[in-house]
Amino acid sequence: MTLAPVLTRLDNDLDRAVERLMELLRISSISTDPAYKGDCDTAADWLVADLASIGFDAAKRPTPGHPMVVAHGGTGAPHLLFYGHYDVQPVDPLALWDKPPFEPAIEDTPKGKVIRGRGTSDDKGQLMTFVEAMRAWVAETGELPCRITIFLEGEEESGSPSLVPFMKENAAELKADFAMICDTGLFDGRVPAITTQLRGLLAEEVIVKAASRDLHSGMYGGLAVNPIHLLTTILADLHDENGRVTLPGFYDDVPELPDEIRAQWQALSFDHSRFLGDIGLSVPYGEPDRTPLEKLWARPTAEVNGITGGYTGEGFKTVLPAEASAKVSFRLVGEQDPEKIHAAFVAHVEDRLPADVSAEFPAGHGAPASRMPTDAPEFETARKALSEEWGMEAAFIGSGGSIPIAGHFQDVLGMDSMLIGFGRDDDQIHSPNEKYDLESFHKGMRSWARIMAALSGKG
Amino acid sequence: MTLAPVLTRLDNDLDRAVERLMELLRISSISTDPAYKGDCDTAADWLVADLASIGFDAAKRPTPGHPMVVAHGGTGAPHLLFYGHYDVQPVDPLALWDKPPFEPAIEDTPKGKVIRGRGTSDDKGQLMTFVEAMRAWVAETGELPCRITIFLEGEEESGSPSLVPFMKENAAELKADFAMICDTGLFDGRVPAITTQLRGLLAEEVIVKAASRDLHSGMYGGLAVNPIHLLTTILADLHDENGRVTLPGFYDDVPELPDEIRAQWQALSFDHSRFLGDIGLSVPYGEPDRTPLEKLWARPTAEVNGITGGYTGEGFKTVLPAEASAKVSFRLVGEQDPEKIHAAFVAHVEDRLPADVSAEFPAGHGAPASRMPTDAPEFETARKALSEEWGMEAAFIGSGGSIPIAGHFQDVLGMDSMLIGFGRDDDQIHSPNEKYDLESFHKGMRSWARIMAALSGKG
Repeated sequence: MTLAPVLTRLDNDLDRAVERLMELLRISSISTDPAYKGDCDTAADWLVADLASIGFDAAKRPTPGHPMVVAHGGTGAPHLLFYGHYDVQPVDPLALWDKPPFEPAIEDTPKGKVIRGRGTSDDKGQLMTFVEAMRAWVAETGELPCRITIFLEGEEESGSPSLVPFMKENAAELKADFAMICDTGLFDGRVPAITTQLRGLLAEEVIVKAASRDLHSGMYGGLAVNPIHLLTTILADLHDENGRVTLPGFYDDVPELPDEIRAQWQALSFDHSRFLGDIGLSVPYGEPDRTPLEKLWARPTAEVNGITGGYTGEGFKTVLPAEASAKVSFRLVGEQDPEKIHAAFVAHVEDRLPADVSAEFPAGHGAPASRMPTDAPEFETARKALSEEWGMEAAFIGSGGSIPIAGHFQDVLGMDSMLIGFGRDDDQIHSPNEKYDLESFHKGMRSWARIMAALSGKG
Repeated sequence: MTLAPVLTRLDNDLDRAVERLMELLRISSISTDPAYKGDCDTAADWLVADLASIGFDAAKRPTPGHPMVVAHGGTGAPHLLFYGHYDVQPVDPLALWDKPPFEPAIEDTPKGKVIRGRGTSDDKGQLMTFVEAMRAWVAETGELPCRITIFLEGEEESGSPSLVPFMKENAAELKADFAMICDTGLFDGRVPAITTQLRGLLAEEVIVKAASRDLHSGMYGGLAVNPIHLLTTILADLHDENGRVTLPGFYDDVPELPDEIRAQWQALSFDHSRFLGDIGLSVPYGEPDRTPLEKLWARPTAEVNGITGGYTGEGFKTVLPAEASAKVSFRLVGEQDPEKIHAAFVAHVEDRLPADVSAEFPAGHGAPASRMPTDAPEFETARKALSEEWGMEAAFIGSGGSIPIAGHFQDVLGMDSMLIGFGRDDDQIHSPNEKYDLESFHKGMRSWARIMAALSGKG
């Protein structure tokens, strides 16, 4: 009897919910760049105030990096912990944005209305879906449907250095029956989904150093070693001609996909031509004997995310640089161990360094892959609630992205996670012109109202 | 009878000559960066005024790029054309300069006094050696020793786009008996030298493009092609494991060193351990069957001078970029044809592009290697004059750097060049903390006075 008026209230309050989200989006909380530290703090303050206005006991909690936001409210089973992150990706290249990234606006597109701006889909728009569902529930009933803890992070886009220490220090406070993580997407932009397996991530940086200073390539070229050449060789050697990663032992802990999962995924009829076509590509890259979904969700990768060395400005400079560097990330699956892969990467680089050349590895960070126990009945309850909202069968899917928090909830708190989100493949997260569909925002709130109702038995 | 008082005057006037050079050095005439266009113009104006003060008929001559400075003076044989360039290299990384690059100063070092600042050695300090020699000659005798044309360029560090068109349009005015080019160095920092063979240069840029926008490496990694991977493969494949360039036909027009030259160079007792030790290296790189001097002066190279792609800022961004690019230069020797090498490079890249990936080649520029006819008697006359000034036998040497102007003087004006300069290997040209030894500046002026005296028979 409760759910229907809550849903109606969400429908009627949508414009004001968008206004609240816009306020949060205007705060340029880029966590990876120290220049935006104050903005991250402002975003946390905004969230504390908003959660307090709903009735939560909310506080900004300091860490050595950006603060956490933790809020408690409600009583009764189950105890649900909701997770999201208020920090956003950098915005460069700024020139490719059609509008300023921190001046969000509703836009009409051929596919419907969207909210355009940095953080709309990753993750401010998503975290506000559960906040709005809770606001409506309290407004309608005077209380939350069950015991709820909210846990919002400000370092998700910069490796979450404070996360695990904070979770360990506050384990008793944060442990709940399930974590509800809202940072994933619909399948194929239309099918509601609970993500139940996630790739892990190991982020590496390597700096190759040779001469003590930049040299003139005419005076020294041919006799002095060029660190860019070594770096290109090191990186080119990371893959064989079939796109497989060459690090020794890299595939040792990579499981083959169970037939059951393979069948489920096949049933999703993934249209890889459209998926690639949306980004100007046509041909699936990488291991030729794997299906596209398997490559995205269940196979490990090594990707160079950035490379730089020598003169890269306008014009030409015949320099033979003293150093060159690259940022490399590995997506991990199954039981792949980030520390073992780190050691293999370091060995791969060091084996390729001739005399006079050294390599440095500024501290990387890693998290293994994770997989959820979909046989727990709560997973099926949540799946049904999702199916009702979207009018089609919700799916258990994999994800190529890494959400290390799910692994940490398992390892540190012994708590499983339901990864439910409403992003779409064309949201351009981490890219210019990021957007979040208004439909995702609206039906996302409604989905959470339904899921909370179903799990707390207050439907 | 004329030479001795001119030399004395140069000695007595040294402080004022340094002051004049400092004025020119304070003008930040970086030609490759459009932001400094006005400064290039100012440097040209300064030179016109200074040459006019000596009695030259001097003028700033417009081009589509930075202006030329052309000056005429004197009568009598031979007609000598003096060449230098007033533009300088960019100064980045600025943080590595101990003092601001355009605030030159005299500095005491363990090896003697030096003038520190951008352009001191390349090429403002060098071009002022002949200007000062002429100033002293005119002050002492009332006229120049012979007919002299001065030709100063402002685009040497940015590929000299206006040079050949200007030379062609003004061929009759510029053609002389010999060109005297002051943009090279002493051998091994001590032996006066005339450079008689120079490597050519082909400068290329390649941009590899894949997806229509930057992608999230978690959402797309493993399925979407990464242009950085392709670029590293393309560049790594440019060399084999012995450091030889792999472009088909690359060595076709590379001559073996004549035994006579090989013997001359062996006699120079090049200390490659010290040469490399000065820049923090110990082991000669590249073709194992070639001597260090041969590698530097007589073998072609391919060097990546700059590479960039993806996220290169602070922190980490798991981006799969839409494009990646590199600047590549080839040093050419013998009869290697820049156009043929360009075509081979383009083919090398295009052969390695899979479906969906394209490459662009923004206009490069090239000049072949050149070699001077050292059997002309004037070469021997100049060599003797140099030997007298420095108190040791001057040498005919090669150079790894490219001074395309020498080739253009041959091709366009049918004029041979004497490349005589006083730079040292540790001058850090094109690098932070560039310097020019005060001894080079002082004995450089005196060398030109002696050479002009000897060639004009007015010693």
